[in-house]
Amino acid sequence: MKRHRIDSGSSWSLADHDPDNTGDFGTDEDGKAAAKAKTEKLVSQMDRLQVRLFSNRTRALLIVLQGMDTSGKDSTIRHVMSGVNPQGCRVAAFKAPTTDERAHDFLWRIHREVPAKGYIGIFNRSHYEDVLITRVNGWISSKTARRRFDQINEFEELLTDNGTTILKFFLYISKEEQKKRLEDRIRDPEKRWKWDSGDLEQRKRWPDYMKAFEEAISATSTRLAPWYVVPANRKWYRNLVVADRTVDALEKMNLTMAPGPQGVDFKKLKVV
Amino acid sequence: MKRHRIDSGSSWSLADHDPDNTGDFGTDEDGKAAAKAKTEKLVSQMDRLQVRLFSNRTRALLIVLQGMDTSGKDSTIRHVMSGVNPQGCRVAAFKAPTTDERAHDFLWRIHREVPAKGYIGIFNRSHYEDVLITRVNGWISSKTARRRFDQINEFEELLTDNGTTILKFFLYISKEEQKKRLEDRIRDPEKRWKWDSGDLEQRKRWPDYMKAFEEAISATSTRLAPWYVVPANRKWYRNLVVADRTVDALEKMNLTMAPGPQGVDFKKLKVV
Repeated sequence: MKRHRIDSGSSWSLADHDPDNTGDFGTDEDGKAAAKAKTEKLVSQMDRLQVRLFSNRTRALLIVLQGMDTSGKDSTIRHVMSGVNPQGCRVAAFKAPTTDERAHDFLWRIHREVPAKGYIGIFNRSHYEDVLITRVNGWISSKTARRRFDQINEFEELLTDNGTTILKFFLYISKEEQKKRLEDRIRDPEKRWKWDSGDLEQRKRWPDYMKAFEEAISATSTRLAPWYVVPANRKWYRNLVVADRTVDALEKMNLTMAPGPQGVDFKKLKVV
Repeated sequence: MKRHRIDSGSSWSLADHDPDNTGDFGTDEDGKAAAKAKTEKLVSQMDRLQVRLFSNRTRALLIVLQGMDTSGKDSTIRHVMSGVNPQGCRVAAFKAPTTDERAHDFLWRIHREVPAKGYIGIFNRSHYEDVLITRVNGWISSKTARRRFDQINEFEELLTDNGTTILKFFLYISKEEQKKRLEDRIRDPEKRWKWDSGDLEQRKRWPDYMKAFEEAISATSTRLAPWYVVPANRKWYRNLVVADRTVDALEKMNLTMAPGPQGVDFKKLKVV
């Protein structure tokens, strides 16, 4: 799944990525079933690895999910992160900033939500909104965007220095796939609660968004906090990629269950 | 499972409750398997009901877990609440208060963590510590405890007035069962990270704790925020009771999926 990673400093283009890609899996029912079975295995591995993370309180994992409307941010959380103990996992969803949040720098509200050691933190949208929607709508200049890229990189370095592994996923769907999903939201009364007419406005700026994503990803894909461009037209492949990278990141922390507290002689302890 | 509820104003005694109770289920492997199968069904119901809660943002659910050390608070969260979308579920674990928390009233840190509308909030320990450990150790007088009971009842009424359903579970294990579980923590290197020598100190005051629980539960089991005394010697029965009451509470909210935003004519919408 490493193939979807954007390596720091590499020259790349979104055009080289295919939102329909399913890697080594066929696009038929067999491929789908095989991918789903693999994802299920990964999710139960994740559950075990999370206990080790939680017992040690030395490391943290931050997962950033970005993508156009309907790209599956909520659904990825539901499918990949259900099964992980909610006690060790915190999801922060970032919407339009409040008055109080606007009165601070753009990283202020983000910083408050970063996972403590022992935890998995999931950002449903993130500080990257401040170089995406703001950029596309012309609320910030390209100069400000470049400053923010630097500020983001410094901020993420601060987090990794403190033991946080950062994974950033751009859930990449095609404009055609978004059309289908939006139409689905219109048609299915059970899905209408997710409708936001603003989504149609953003859709009109699709090419600008793709350019903004490309720019942001290029500027902020670092060795320690890489971006993955996740082909997300097929939900089952999207889930597999995110689950695979998450398990990989947790495994690389190389954690065993934490020992007991220091200074306790467990051989001599007696419960009366 | 209603049988485990302590009704407001009823005269009751912890002595009438048996931590080994397994309700209608046998204590053999068959009973255990049947209870586990039922719990599994309840957990997937919970997942579906939680989406309705989340889509409406009109109601909230607060689950309070209390119990002696090793009574299974963490494990209940892991087994019953895994499977619920972590995006709609927040766990707050209350430890010994920080300096800042101590400088406020005892409900201050609690209030900050109550679930917003749309969410399930789980308290692993809670404001009840301030009428339990504090009382048993003589840090507050019985007069202060009684004032706090009133304050707790008023506070919980405020929450229910705002649309929050409150469920409070006392995970009731026997002193003998705690001995086994503590010995297990000593023996099993994988479990030692949970060891806290303070647990042995609290264990010495077992009868005082039971008295404090009895008193607190009697004073704060209200019609809108009832306590359940959950027989917790058998983990599978404990999980079943908590899952069953949670599903019941969500069902009683009588929610369907939220409709789309007002003023949107879905028949006329077109995605281009």
